[in-house]
Amino acid sequence: MTAFTRTVAIRFAHCDPAGIVFFPQFFALVNEMVEDWFAGPLDCSFKQLHIGARMGVPTVHFEADFLAPARLGDELRQTLLVTSVGASSCTLTHDAWLGDNKLACFRQTIVHVALDTMKAAPWPVSLRARIQLYGEKST
Amino acid sequence: MTAFTRTVAIRFAHCDPAGIVFFPQFFALVNEMVEDWFAGPLDCSFKQLHIGARMGVPTVHFEADFLAPARLGDELRQTLLVTSVGASSCTLTHDAWLGDNKLACFRQTIVHVALDTMKAAPWPVSLRARIQLYGEKST
Amino acid sequence: MTAFTRTVAIRFAHCDPAGIVFFPQFFALVNEMVEDWFAGPLDCSFKQLHIGARMGVPTVHFEADFLAPARLGDELRQTLLVTSVGASSCTLTHDAWLGDNKLACFRQTIVHVALDTMKAAPWPVSLRARIQLYGEKST
Amino acid sequence: MTAFTRTVAIRFAHCDPAGIVFFPQFFALVNEMVEDWFAGPLDCSFKQLHIGARMGVPTVHFEADFLAPARLGDELRQTLLVTSVGASSCTLTHDAWLGDNKLACFRQTIVHVALDTMKAAPWPVSLRARIQLYGEKST
Repeated sequence: MTAFTRTVAIRFAHCDPAGIVFFPQFFALVNEMVEDWFAGPLDCSFKQLHIGARMGVPTVHFEADFLAPARLGDELRQTLLVTSVGASSCTLTHDAWLGDNKLACFRQTIVHVALDTMKAAPWPVSLRARIQLYGEKST
Repeated sequence: MTAFTRTVAIRFAHCDPAGIVFFPQFFALVNEMVEDWFAGPLDCSFKQLHIGARMGVPTVHFEADFLAPARLGDELRQTLLVTSVGASSCTLTHDAWLGDNKLACFRQTIVHVALDTMKAAPWPVSLRARIQLYGEKST
Repeated sequence: MTAFTRTVAIRFAHCDPAGIVFFPQFFALVNEMVEDWFAGPLDCSFKQLHIGARMGVPTVHFEADFLAPARLGDELRQTLLVTSVGASSCTLTHDAWLGDNKLACFRQTIVHVALDTMKAAPWPVSLRARIQLYGEKST
Repeated sequence: MTAFTRTVAIRFAHCDPAGIVFFPQFFALVNEMVEDWFAGPLDCSFKQLHIGARMGVPTVHFEADFLAPARLGDELRQTLLVTSVGASSCTLTHDAWLGDNKLACFRQTIVHVALDTMKAAPWPVSLRARIQLYGEKST
């Protein structure tokens, strides 16, 4: 089990007048993780996917727990693991950490669709294989 | 049971290169509902709350189901109902409709906190009473 | 001379940790004016324009003066006037007011382009005529 | 003359339904440059500045020329130079490049203010000295 990870600085634009990350911006940070995971280890950038192949990976389900606020200047560490993979969907678990404190966790289900019809389409075999490498239970 | 409702046009800024609402923007639209509900029927604008009283209502839990895409120009109808009210929290159910089609639904738990400590604080009695008027089961 | 106008409440999402409108959000509010002007008096919604006609109106030049901060809860009044109209472009003057105080002014040049080539294309005659009705010097 | 530079990938969230960077997002990218410049070579992060010192650097003037569209997946190179430094303000020139093509240029004036009064305040001597190292004409 190897999580996909990155560290990102909490910016001015992420924060609200209460001085903490505005929660819709937190979802944007989670989406950036998916984007970076596709562009990096999955070898299928959002440009290739959306413009080249006219496919997309819209989110159909999201659960989020915000445990503690993230603040301007925090160095947030984000992790992504694959909880399950279906024929044309997958469910991801995202955690966001500040040092040893978990600030938030997310459960996200995305579906592989054709943009022109918004109908689900099976993952290409090679892409599905790369997704499975990030499975929580893979060994 | 009376839901708080509004209609909002899906704007250019809400949409992504796939031509549909980018999901973090959907969470922002849901937050606008809470903001409008507080400023309107709850008689406690975010300005009064944050600047005046130095209190906030951060989200601690969110669940979202995206059932069908919302698109540029759609007239989205949003509804808000109160599922439960605690001493210092409440859980809201949001639906988003295009005509008779439900495009998305959300379950959101917010907590009333002091901004300077981020500690939960009981709802003021009058505010809590107004919140309860939007309860799913109130009669 | 009649300006296109609207009033908009400054929301939580517009404001930064300094408690004032984050300037990129101010540009987004200006863009909303253009979007509402097209959808309303110009009778050419961004949906019709982008999805229907595969045309767009990207900004090629912007000047902005921020004279005083806009804050959470402010009721901002925005005005739009047409400074000049070319064959395929037009220059707009936007002001943003809080009561009698001008908070910001903007000079924006947009160009009518074909989305597939990003090449300038002449305004349709009827659209150009409606644009001219908002000219600073029209009588 | 040494410009402050960075390279940034154009993300899904930056792009609009026309598939190009939505211009308010371009201003957000420019603001990130200022934020990174302050946090890095100026040794004065926005956290220190806003939370620690209760100072801010709001923009009072902006000019932008958008010369060619930036698109999803583009590796944008941004440069920042200081055009002039006043007692409590400075004017910055930003360029954005894709390879050898300049996609956009910006002229931005920021002012050093006390957040509680929004009044201009002189740059601290050491900060002003570090700003001047990025002057277009410094030798």
